[in-house]
Amino acid sequence: MSQDAQDTRIERDSMGEMQVPVHAYYGASTQRAVLNFPISDLRFSREFIRALGQIKQSAAWVNRELGHVDAQIADAIIQASQEVIDGKLDDHFVLDIFQTGSGTSTNMNANEVIANRASEILGGSRGSRKVHPNDHVNFGQSSNDVIPSAIHLSALLSIEHYLIPALLELQQTLSDKADEFYSIIKTGRTHLQDATPIRLGQEFSGYTGQIERAIIRLNHAQGELAELALGGTAVGTGVNTDPVFASRVCERLSNITGVEVRETSNHFQSQSTLDNVVEASGVLNTIAVSLMKIANDIRWLGSGPRAGIGEIDLPAVQPGSSIMPGKVNPVIAESVCMVCAQVIGNHTTVTVAGQSGNFEINVMMPVVAHNILQSINLLSAASRNFSRQCITGLKATTRGPEMVERGLAICTSLAPVIGYDAAANISKEAHKTGRTVREVAREKTNLTEEDLDRILNPESMTRPGLEGGPAGG
Amino acid sequence: MSQDAQDTRIERDSMGEMQVPVHAYYGASTQRAVLNFPISDLRFSREFIRALGQIKQSAAWVNRELGHVDAQIADAIIQASQEVIDGKLDDHFVLDIFQTGSGTSTNMNANEVIANRASEILGGSRGSRKVHPNDHVNFGQSSNDVIPSAIHLSALLSIEHYLIPALLELQQTLSDKADEFYSIIKTGRTHLQDATPIRLGQEFSGYTGQIERAIIRLNHAQGELAELALGGTAVGTGVNTDPVFASRVCERLSNITGVEVRETSNHFQSQSTLDNVVEASGVLNTIAVSLMKIANDIRWLGSGPRAGIGEIDLPAVQPGSSIMPGKVNPVIAESVCMVCAQVIGNHTTVTVAGQSGNFEINVMMPVVAHNILQSINLLSAASRNFSRQCITGLKATTRGPEMVERGLAICTSLAPVIGYDAAANISKEAHKTGRTVREVAREKTNLTEEDLDRILNPESMTRPGLEGGPAGG
Amino acid sequence: MSQDAQDTRIERDSMGEMQVPVHAYYGASTQRAVLNFPISDLRFSREFIRALGQIKQSAAWVNRELGHVDAQIADAIIQASQEVIDGKLDDHFVLDIFQTGSGTSTNMNANEVIANRASEILGGSRGSRKVHPNDHVNFGQSSNDVIPSAIHLSALLSIEHYLIPALLELQQTLSDKADEFYSIIKTGRTHLQDATPIRLGQEFSGYTGQIERAIIRLNHAQGELAELALGGTAVGTGVNTDPVFASRVCERLSNITGVEVRETSNHFQSQSTLDNVVEASGVLNTIAVSLMKIANDIRWLGSGPRAGIGEIDLPAVQPGSSIMPGKVNPVIAESVCMVCAQVIGNHTTVTVAGQSGNFEINVMMPVVAHNILQSINLLSAASRNFSRQCITGLKATTRGPEMVERGLAICTSLAPVIGYDAAANISKEAHKTGRTVREVAREKTNLTEEDLDRILNPESMTRPGLEGGPAGG
Amino acid sequence: MSQDAQDTRIERDSMGEMQVPVHAYYGASTQRAVLNFPISDLRFSREFIRALGQIKQSAAWVNRELGHVDAQIADAIIQASQEVIDGKLDDHFVLDIFQTGSGTSTNMNANEVIANRASEILGGSRGSRKVHPNDHVNFGQSSNDVIPSAIHLSALLSIEHYLIPALLELQQTLSDKADEFYSIIKTGRTHLQDATPIRLGQEFSGYTGQIERAIIRLNHAQGELAELALGGTAVGTGVNTDPVFASRVCERLSNITGVEVRETSNHFQSQSTLDNVVEASGVLNTIAVSLMKIANDIRWLGSGPRAGIGEIDLPAVQPGSSIMPGKVNPVIAESVCMVCAQVIGNHTTVTVAGQSGNFEINVMMPVVAHNILQSINLLSAASRNFSRQCITGLKATTRGPEMVERGLAICTSLAPVIGYDAAANISKEAHKTGRTVREVAREKTNLTEEDLDRILNPESMTRPGLEGGPAGG
Repeated sequence: MSQDAQDTRIERDSMGEMQVPVHAYYGASTQRAVLNFPISDLRFSREFIRALGQIKQSAAWVNRELGHVDAQIADAIIQASQEVIDGKLDDHFVLDIFQTGSGTSTNMNANEVIANRASEILGGSRGSRKVHPNDHVNFGQSSNDVIPSAIHLSALLSIEHYLIPALLELQQTLSDKADEFYSIIKTGRTHLQDATPIRLGQEFSGYTGQIERAIIRLNHAQGELAELALGGTAVGTGVNTDPVFASRVCERLSNITGVEVRETSNHFQSQSTLDNVVEASGVLNTIAVSLMKIANDIRWLGSGPRAGIGEIDLPAVQPGSSIMPGKVNPVIAESVCMVCAQVIGNHTTVTVAGQSGNFEINVMMPVVAHNILQSINLLSAASRNFSRQCITGLKATTRGPEMVERGLAICTSLAPVIGYDAAANISKEAHKTGRTVREVAREKTNLTEEDLDRILNPESMTRPGLEGGPAGG
Repeated sequence: MSQDAQDTRIERDSMGEMQVPVHAYYGASTQRAVLNFPISDLRFSREFIRALGQIKQSAAWVNRELGHVDAQIADAIIQASQEVIDGKLDDHFVLDIFQTGSGTSTNMNANEVIANRASEILGGSRGSRKVHPNDHVNFGQSSNDVIPSAIHLSALLSIEHYLIPALLELQQTLSDKADEFYSIIKTGRTHLQDATPIRLGQEFSGYTGQIERAIIRLNHAQGELAELALGGTAVGTGVNTDPVFASRVCERLSNITGVEVRETSNHFQSQSTLDNVVEASGVLNTIAVSLMKIANDIRWLGSGPRAGIGEIDLPAVQPGSSIMPGKVNPVIAESVCMVCAQVIGNHTTVTVAGQSGNFEINVMMPVVAHNILQSINLLSAASRNFSRQCITGLKATTRGPEMVERGLAICTSLAPVIGYDAAANISKEAHKTGRTVREVAREKTNLTEEDLDRILNPESMTRPGLEGGPAGG
Repeated sequence: MSQDAQDTRIERDSMGEMQVPVHAYYGASTQRAVLNFPISDLRFSREFIRALGQIKQSAAWVNRELGHVDAQIADAIIQASQEVIDGKLDDHFVLDIFQTGSGTSTNMNANEVIANRASEILGGSRGSRKVHPNDHVNFGQSSNDVIPSAIHLSALLSIEHYLIPALLELQQTLSDKADEFYSIIKTGRTHLQDATPIRLGQEFSGYTGQIERAIIRLNHAQGELAELALGGTAVGTGVNTDPVFASRVCERLSNITGVEVRETSNHFQSQSTLDNVVEASGVLNTIAVSLMKIANDIRWLGSGPRAGIGEIDLPAVQPGSSIMPGKVNPVIAESVCMVCAQVIGNHTTVTVAGQSGNFEINVMMPVVAHNILQSINLLSAASRNFSRQCITGLKATTRGPEMVERGLAICTSLAPVIGYDAAANISKEAHKTGRTVREVAREKTNLTEEDLDRILNPESMTRPGLEGGPAGG
Repeated sequence: MSQDAQDTRIERDSMGEMQVPVHAYYGASTQRAVLNFPISDLRFSREFIRALGQIKQSAAWVNRELGHVDAQIADAIIQASQEVIDGKLDDHFVLDIFQTGSGTSTNMNANEVIANRASEILGGSRGSRKVHPNDHVNFGQSSNDVIPSAIHLSALLSIEHYLIPALLELQQTLSDKADEFYSIIKTGRTHLQDATPIRLGQEFSGYTGQIERAIIRLNHAQGELAELALGGTAVGTGVNTDPVFASRVCERLSNITGVEVRETSNHFQSQSTLDNVVEASGVLNTIAVSLMKIANDIRWLGSGPRAGIGEIDLPAVQPGSSIMPGKVNPVIAESVCMVCAQVIGNHTTVTVAGQSGNFEINVMMPVVAHNILQSINLLSAASRNFSRQCITGLKATTRGPEMVERGLAICTSLAPVIGYDAAANISKEAHKTGRTVREVAREKTNLTEEDLDRILNPESMTRPGLEGGPAGG
């Protein structure tokens, strides 16, 4: 919405007049911020605007109920807020993320858009101030409680509606693969070196367990985010707000969004810090760490096709190289890894922002909003895509099972029978001569063929037990 | 324990003979690692060694019970492990943090020290292998399950015994100050700019609320850390271990340590990742962020004594300057801030380490152990010191209350009565002319003196309410 | 360019046929990637696409010269590339940042767009393969050398054309303010506590010096970025490329861009790592650290207007609060601080990405491209905006000078005359009694009034010298 | 040096009397700090104490020359400082890293130790103040210029004496291996997938190039660190110092240390920020990223021995597993990786600290000193150890060469001859049928056996050239 060559109208705020584009719903304060912050192309996301609309709508609803705002005006605000919630007015949220650190500009953007739209609904013109952005739309609120609340609410809803479903889907896909791959016994690897046998399905059950825990961790994050700063207004004291305002707004918000939110029990910490968001970001950081591990394992298991590990085949989704014909790469897993690197960096940004607060407010709100919501969205999209375009199409090759009998670490189950040192000698001899552990053990021990079959059984090595040892023997 | 000029004895491991210092309890494997890792002066902390001893002792106790290790040998291991727990053998834990990524060297260090000490107890000599480090002390275990379990256990205990008590003490001190400062009404600050009045006690109640939540977050971390990898042995399958071994060891560990630990329900995720530690580190990162905010606020509130904010006096604990006589600085708060910067950086290290795992193990165990335990210890010591040497001695000055009536933001409570725009004009006029809001309002509105007393009452502005507005009016 | 309800045509690549939107210039490989990576709304920036166009154009120019590509085809590629350079085909670069880690998809996007546009220029239809994306446009290249080269080139040009000019402007503005504020003598502050006098202009000369050094650091970064991977093709060996290809392309690139670039002297490090970009990102991190310091100082110096430090007035660019009328906040400085937090986090992302490479390529190219270019753009825009909308309008208040004589730290210049301990006693007495250092010194020493005037002269304390000491006396 | 049960003597500072251990050289200020900061076990390193001694000694030398300090006293200070430099008084540097943020406590620790030792030299007793810690030892200095200068100097010297030599050694070892492995042709890998052939020696030349650039980057860091804050004293203005003091001290320091240092041209930026250290830390971060890549490649190339990539054998330096007999792990490389993770986290700490400064000083000095010096030392030790215990002993196996002919990516050199699409078909056919590219190409093209020998020659694929293409043909 370039302003050049546009017709404009005059809008006013407490600093005086401003020309705004004639079709814009926003007013003078927003326009000042447009001019003040020509920094990036980054805007608040749909989820954030929606949450802001939900808060404004619920506030009007409660202010009407408490008699603080005239019913007709409140109804118009509620209707205009619904349009914000539905995304119909997104084009009028024109401000840069890198703006005032309280997000006041965007709060005023919402107040002005809703006030002008509500004025229209009541038959007034834009700029008429029939509905006032501060005195009506913002009644009982301050940017200082609204913006952190909008961060919490939008993050909470994004986790609930995008990230948890995406992770549940990924968990299920991994779990299905764990079942499918249960019978595949292959060489385990520690330190990248051959270790005792493991089922490919067990590896996938590990990934499943990581995602299962990721979701539990998100429950913790959601508990953090459910605590809203609303009611504290300017500095946490609640000046200019009805004592019951915030709890009722939270009740209303819970009803319309379907997720439980609550007024904080301590407005001073709630408003002057971003601690809860930092904690939630820490959870996203852990999830990034988990996904990085899974995606990397998948990439390595599928490495090859000939000179790599090659224990699984990944779906071929696109040509891999502009110069090497026929090459197929684990591109979906790579995109997941890059998402994780971004989320880890976003967490640093949130952390640096979180530790920057002074006195009654932290003025890094917008950048934190941007980063936490981006992290949630990236993890959601990447997890779903990983599940659908990569994990679900994985196939086990024959290479894993083929290598098991040649593994040296199967001498591990000899140790409880013949001792660690003797077992080590067998392993080293096998390594030196290129033979198998079984072949050397046959020669170097007096274990019978039956003993060896029992002890060196890869299948039994994939579960707890002391096949040949003092207890299991 | 320099090896030069020392008498040595011969020890053996699966790679052959090594000379070790004659008085050392450790053996050949440890000695190899001494030579392999001349990297730093950093050693595993007391807390980690203790946890390792507790695990070895509990394992021996269970192995005795299950009949896997001869009772006499098990008893000697239990006794030797107790000496490890008690710190009597700390000098024999000689390895660098920057060693093998699984911590195998330190697990072997423990196995060898305990085996040699137990051999002695049974009348054998060091190096006699009467008690075998692998076949007896390590029975049913692997570095790959022992080391992550020792990280979890030591972090869990350090949080329980150091960090939570320190934070509880800080919370109480802050809460006491919140009470003491309840009557002090001062200028609130948002964006560092004068805002509506707030009680100094309310600011401290905010800090109290931050610490209260820090402790709740630690409960989440403890839940993560209570899940132990024990029982997975080499690759998570539990090869060479009794199926009931791990659950019984956890039961035993819970008994002797007084904190509840449990065998993981998913050994593959537990052993191949550090996810739980990353999550716990995220909690410590949040706590660092919280403490940074509090310590910075304290520093700023005490800035001056003449050209700063000067609302509180900090205890003078030492001369502040080598060149400026008589200067007193907020040094305790500064030490807290530096601790927070360290913990935030440690969290990056833990995160980078956490995302580096491959297949059945993450080979960044020792560095993660070092960082998480350092973070816990630093936060514990800094919180306690902050409470005792700074917070408890804080005194409110008269400057905060003196400035309230001169504040411009008290016009905020005029807004619900006369509208935001009119109130803004009064504030601006007062700013321009150097007068107070009350003086200008008296002139520019038709509010009576009683109205102004009621509306511009700083005390009522420190609580929710609409003093002059449509509802409160 | 939504694909729904669009007419499509058939395109082919080495994997087979794909339907692409009929007006799209891209082909089958790009279309596959559209479907493969529905992750974020993030696209490669204008600067990156331009650099990619410049590389493709220069490659065609050299391939024509060397006779590797038919002259007519090469000319069409050169013309089509110019349209890419000029931004005319930006709508056809449709791929997500979170794609294949080599950026192959975007390299193929460029190859296909240019090939189809060039085919058109030669009278063929889109999809005709008259000009072939791989055999002609990509000749002598690989994504593995093109994409890192495009990262280097775009970052280099963005630093040259945006960041350095923005910092030079900021440096000049700060330097002008240093001159303007030279005569303002105020209380210095260390540990936030009053220290010896300093000129406000000296503080600003410090900021100037920070930016001056920032620019020198960028020269270092530019040196890193000038080294291009071109010529290494698939794995750094240069398979399928003419030995002189890369050096000539670099020469051509230097000519058309006006900045010097050079073929790497070591293709293997150049192609398999992002080390140079990590180093350049480290420089941006330092600059963010510098700007954070400056912006925070400005915020604090302007704090108040009544209960803060209040030594400068910031330009009032917008209403500061939705609830507190008349409040003006340091919003431009805050936006700078948020930019710095973002850049610091981006550096973590770049670092995590940089350490993730394996063997012949690092597959975190696109996320690194996105983060480094975002950091450069954010720092550029924020620096310029800071200069124009904040620094340039700063005004010194009278408060700084008013407080100097009341400062306790001016006793510092007594120390060389009467000793540190005696001076400390005077400072403490002044603090306790609320008097000035001069008043107490007059009483407690036998210094004459002339001595005191000379020694306690704030002006002389703002420069090196020993006013009353053994040497200066 | 526990104070309990020790005899004490009385010392005084500007705050009054303190009891200090009778044998301690430090005085009252240090003792206060001992009590104030019971935070960690971390102390300033040898390198830092040495640099502090060098600064104090050079200052005394210049103060003598300029006549500011009595010659006899100055000589005693010079002698005492030499003992500090030589490490003879290290036990008397007893303070925690987490202390006052300016490091004033440690500056006073140095001043007091040197003053007391110098007093002794002159025949006085400890505590006699015959030589005064502030008036003599600290003359012309402030903690605020001494401590950042000591950080710079110690880091500069550590880079010069430890890190650069260690990296030069590593570079040479890698370069030697590049030569040794020149003839080994193996499968390249991009995206972990088989790519065109590469020489093992070329991979090692890439590592060599990384380290070569690391050293060049360190030159940049050294340039940053050579700029000293000395001469600014309390707030950068140089109050209480002779105008020529700092330049002469720098000259003296350059002489005695052998590295060039210079007085900053801008004391205000130099003293109020840690920008240069942040920049230097960024260089260390890049080096960590480089080493992580190399160490990981080595680990992966050595993976196996049977079910991994297995192209090189690593020296077996210790038993790899407590449970798996005979296992050998890449433990040296792992220790390098952990060092890198630590350095990356330390860089975050330095960054957070760097952006925390206010006004005339940054009060995160000690934690920054600790982290930067730790990073330098860790990288030095790890690089040297990596070179000596790992790289030098690497051996190429036969597996790499064995797999080349079976690689699919060798079809790449067919592309310039038969086109990308036809080459891709051959690769896919070979993949599907398990045949080699040569076998399929023989069947599907009309290339002669001589053509195929020439085009599919692995050796020629390891250098630039167009074997069968339009130019090379």
